[in-house]
Amino acid sequence: MNVVVLRFGHRYVRDERTTTHVFLTARAFGATRVIYSGQRDEKVEEKVNSVTKIWGGAFQIEYQEDWKQTIIQWKQKGGEVIHLTVYGLSMLNVMSQIKHSDKDKMIIIGGAKIPGPIYEYADWNVSVTSQPHSEISALGVFLHDLFNGEEFTKIFENARLRVIPHPKGKKVLKM
Amino acid sequence: MNVVVLRFGHRYVRDERTTTHVFLTARAFGATRVIYSGQRDEKVEEKVNSVTKIWGGAFQIEYQEDWKQTIIQWKQKGGEVIHLTVYGLSMLNVMSQIKHSDKDKMIIIGGAKIPGPIYEYADWNVSVTSQPHSEISALGVFLHDLFNGEEFTKIFENARLRVIPHPKGKKVLKM
Repeated sequence: MNVVVLRFGHRYVRDERTTTHVFLTARAFGATRVIYSGQRDEKVEEKVNSVTKIWGGAFQIEYQEDWKQTIIQWKQKGGEVIHLTVYGLSMLNVMSQIKHSDKDKMIIIGGAKIPGPIYEYADWNVSVTSQPHSEISALGVFLHDLFNGEEFTKIFENARLRVIPHPKGKKVLKM
Repeated sequence: MNVVVLRFGHRYVRDERTTTHVFLTARAFGATRVIYSGQRDEKVEEKVNSVTKIWGGAFQIEYQEDWKQTIIQWKQKGGEVIHLTVYGLSMLNVMSQIKHSDKDKMIIIGGAKIPGPIYEYADWNVSVTSQPHSEISALGVFLHDLFNGEEFTKIFENARLRVIPHPKGKKVLKM
């Protein structure tokens, strides 16, 4: 199962840090790719790509102006779409259904206000708690549950640095 | 068990949005209070307090200039300290030990660079994956596991608005 994250409506400068957090969360928690719409932002791309260069893996970033076409094509190729929103069905209730299918999954998260059609395109509108919080933590918690915590033991290939878990200090292995 | 989040070293303007995400994540995932150090930021406080006013619960925000004294006093009162850091022991390996004690817990997360003594004060330095990502998703995933997902059914008292989970649309109950 391939997981791709679609970050909807990135706003240049304003969203620089939150979008960076979204991309790094997607990478750390096992997504293979992020697609983003809104305004193109090479600074964010460079930042996240430099993390991938150092910490490994084959994580990719793609900008798509036409989010609608991106979603439609994803569905035509047989992929499923999950939209994370505070208004959706509780993750705890739908996760077993979502896991039941091994089809590739696109996880859509906002930032900018999400237009109505996305609620329709989505196979599941899913809430990570019914409280307002953060698309970053929603994404992390959702992927953590989707992958059953397996992202914790994922090997990131071709890493230059690797952390050796330590009870008190910082131990980093140069490869 | 009472859970408090200590956001270390908030930087005025620069961290406004990420700190807001941290506070809202702490609230949604069951912490009762956040303490923050660094620069005081009334705009962030107002924003998060207005969410609490609308969405309920008794979430509190506290600014403490002297983070060291805050941690020492917490420990003197019998509370435990968990520092979330990419360099720490894997959450998956230490969570059962952490859950074993019912003592109140302070979860420390950075933003600004964390000074060495915090690694020493911490009863556990814990990593949420060994990859760089976001203190926001780290906090969400950690609290979600700590509370066994019970935060999903938590009732926020005196809410003015409550979301009714819906498969496609937005359904909000005015109380």
